Amino acid sequence: MTAEIFPKVKTIDLRKKHIGPSCKVFFSHDPIKIVRAKGQYMYDENGVRYLDCINNVAHVGHSHPMVVKAGAEQMELLNTNSRFLHDNLVQYAQRLQATLPEKLSVCYFVNSGSEANDLALRLAWEYTGHKDVITLDNAYHGHVSSLINISPYKFHQLANAEQSKSVHVALSPDLYRGNYRQDHPDPATAYADDVNNLIQKAHEKGHKVAAFIAESLQSCGGQVIPPAGYFQKVAQHVHRAGGLFIADEVQVGFGRVGTHFWAFQLQGEDFVPDIVTMGKPIGNGHPMSCVVTTREVAEAFKNSGMEYFNTFGGNPVSCAIGLAVLDVIEKEDLQGNALRVGGYLTRLLEQQKEKHPLVGDIRGRGLFVGAELVRDRVKLTPATAEAQDIIYKLKEQHILLSADGPHRNVLKFKPPMCFSEEDADMVVEKIDQILTGTLNAPLSL
Amino acid sequence: MTAEIFPKVKTIDLRKKHIGPSCKVFFSHDPIKIVRAKGQYMYDENGVRYLDCINNVAHVGHSHPMVVKAGAEQMELLNTNSRFLHDNLVQYAQRLQATLPEKLSVCYFVNSGSEANDLALRLAWEYTGHKDVITLDNAYHGHVSSLINISPYKFHQLANAEQSKSVHVALSPDLYRGNYRQDHPDPATAYADDVNNLIQKAHEKGHKVAAFIAESLQSCGGQVIPPAGYFQKVAQHVHRAGGLFIADEVQVGFGRVGTHFWAFQLQGEDFVPDIVTMGKPIGNGHPMSCVVTTREVAEAFKNSGMEYFNTFGGNPVSCAIGLAVLDVIEKEDLQGNALRVGGYLTRLLEQQKEKHPLVGDIRGRGLFVGAELVRDRVKLTPATAEAQDIIYKLKEQHILLSADGPHRNVLKFKPPMCFSEEDADMVVEKIDQILTGTLNAPLSL
Repeated sequence: MTAEIFPKVKTIDLRKKHIGPSCKVFFSHDPIKIVRAKGQYMYDENGVRYLDCINNVAHVGHSHPMVVKAGAEQMELLNTNSRFLHDNLVQYAQRLQATLPEKLSVCYFVNSGSEANDLALRLAWEYTGHKDVITLDNAYHGHVSSLINISPYKFHQLANAEQSKSVHVALSPDLYRGNYRQDHPDPATAYADDVNNLIQKAHEKGHKVAAFIAESLQSCGGQVIPPAGYFQKVAQHVHRAGGLFIADEVQVGFGRVGTHFWAFQLQGEDFVPDIVTMGKPIGNGHPMSCVVTTREVAEAFKNSGMEYFNTFGGNPVSCAIGLAVLDVIEKEDLQGNALRVGGYLTRLLEQQKEKHPLVGDIRGRGLFVGAELVRDRVKLTPATAEAQDIIYKLKEQHILLSADGPHRNVLKFKPPMCFSEEDADMVVEKIDQILTGTLNAPLSL
Repeated sequence: MTAEIFPKVKTIDLRKKHIGPSCKVFFSHDPIKIVRAKGQYMYDENGVRYLDCINNVAHVGHSHPMVVKAGAEQMELLNTNSRFLHDNLVQYAQRLQATLPEKLSVCYFVNSGSEANDLALRLAWEYTGHKDVITLDNAYHGHVSSLINISPYKFHQLANAEQSKSVHVALSPDLYRGNYRQDHPDPATAYADDVNNLIQKAHEKGHKVAAFIAESLQSCGGQVIPPAGYFQKVAQHVHRAGGLFIADEVQVGFGRVGTHFWAFQLQGEDFVPDIVTMGKPIGNGHPMSCVVTTREVAEAFKNSGMEYFNTFGGNPVSCAIGLAVLDVIEKEDLQGNALRVGGYLTRLLEQQKEKHPLVGDIRGRGLFVGAELVRDRVKLTPATAEAQDIIYKLKEQHILLSADGPHRNVLKFKPPMCFSEEDADMVVEKIDQILTGTLNAPLSL
């Protein structure tokens, strides 16, 4: 039962010929060809099943029948742009709004997290009349040119990176490896003060700050969980400077953190960003995303005089799919599952930390979990090669996991939200065997 | 038979409440609610049928069953990112490549025309090491911030537009209203010389040109058809300056011009752009798009050291849909239909020009046609209000047409490619009646 057209070697050959060489595959030494997927499992061309611990885009599970049905039925009926009235658009906006604090009431539908973050910047620039942006170290906010500029995760990769003069990089609020750690009496204030220092320095140069942008939990940056209260303090500083707070929920939104629907809500009830951007999980793989902001910001953007039109954004098919994703999250209590299974996974990994010196830190919320590997628990020497080795050995065991962070030494768990305790048992057992050295030959097919 | 959830007044109310006020609807005085569509027809909540003369995104016809089936089947099987090998991706790249000159062999799959044009700029910046971009007056290339900068159609809307110092606006090669017209002995050279002048001026300021970008036929800019040979001459100037030529086919590609699959091919066999961007019609409404370039440009981009990853770009569903669109274009000979029906429509409109002084110019290729309305055929005074009036009266006759161009006085035909001669007869007959003043009450429902 394969959906294969070409032998794998031919697929690889055609890919080399016709796909941009900057577009990398997973496991480049021996990439995987996936032909179908269901729930938290993916299947290769030989029918081999892989446990998927990484695809947060397939949020409610790969190829969820309710999502597929909603998309297919709407495609059959109508797929057109938002210059025509359509109930899916307004119903979906209403449903999304109901998950957010009341003042975040105005939506813009776009096609990707990158489009969302770029629009968030445009909103902030227009509302404030300012230009500068403060971003966190190791942040990744998207691939369009304006976002490469505010993504140290990306621009640090460049040989001759020239940082934009209107972008300021604040300390990552990393309590494990950052400037202020677990032992600091008040890391939230200390990290927020760093942002304030950047604002003051920008002012000294005659610059003005339009926005502070951060993922509510830093993902590519190493699964970093900022201390509670940090965002409130940053928002105070940024608002005082006339800027806006943009919370990037592209990786971490839609119930993944378990206790809340949005990860910024982990900071406390008293925190409300000015702009929230959404993406990846929003359509379970369908290209769609959203920016939500306040009435004030939306009106200022309108008053610039420039229409905003996005050809595909908010089309009836995308909205039908978005609605189905929300329905499945509720119906299957996937937020509750993320809390339960995420907690279980974190406890299992904590046990690994007690057992194996290589496991330096376990941190996470719900089904967003990082395990940072270090060669030395005092110096925190990144165990980058070891992380790669584990990833490859897990792949041989048909488990998909990835390593990320600035040192590529953080094992990154962000599975589909239907991930089970049995799945958690399986992946941690294999990690244990790899770290113990008791894992030998790959499983037979 | 309606797919309505809310009464229309409630839809409008919710839209005002929850959708960004910069996002406009068609016919804002009395917007249309569309609930389904098929081929070149759209249906409102009361079952009233509208003839669609404007939706070039629904390229092979609204909700084409082959496209819907391809999308639905692939959604059911697998929708994931391009870090896994998949045959749809490489097969689609191969199929697209076969429509292009051989040297345009490397594809990047993204989600929208905006993402495509932004990536095209990134490729040009990286390949050339230069920064400046030359764009045409009235051009529109997308809504992300880098593209607003190169879209005079957009930034002219701003009260306090501040044009980027690295963007240079060349004369639109408009033979009707531009600096050099039908009576000029060699408008292609004259317009290309303007580009060269901009290059020289940039050089005098110590700037260097990374790219010239133009739609192969200007769409929002007023359905402008550049004189053949213009692109070759521009490319010579731009290449001599070390820059690249980007042909934006987002609006006009995929056989719409009838004689060729790509509109840049109208310029002659000897013209090959360095980068081609695609969008709107590529997925018949599904959010997808593509950038194609040469091996040399792609390798230079890779050598920057920065990976390019696009979460949704090139996923198996998008590629399945893209393949189905190519299949339908071939199977139903839609390019041939565009040539035949487009020619027929153009001839009918030419007759209107002979009959009504308001019709100043008819121009087009295939099913991409513009009718420019003027109050005075010598002064070319734009008949903006008249164009709006026609659009609204046609709407009452259940025909969807729009007016665009810098003066919003160009009636813009870009219907689904299954548009028929009967459809052409109907719309032109109604236009004739409107211009003659013999059209009275709206059709009864």
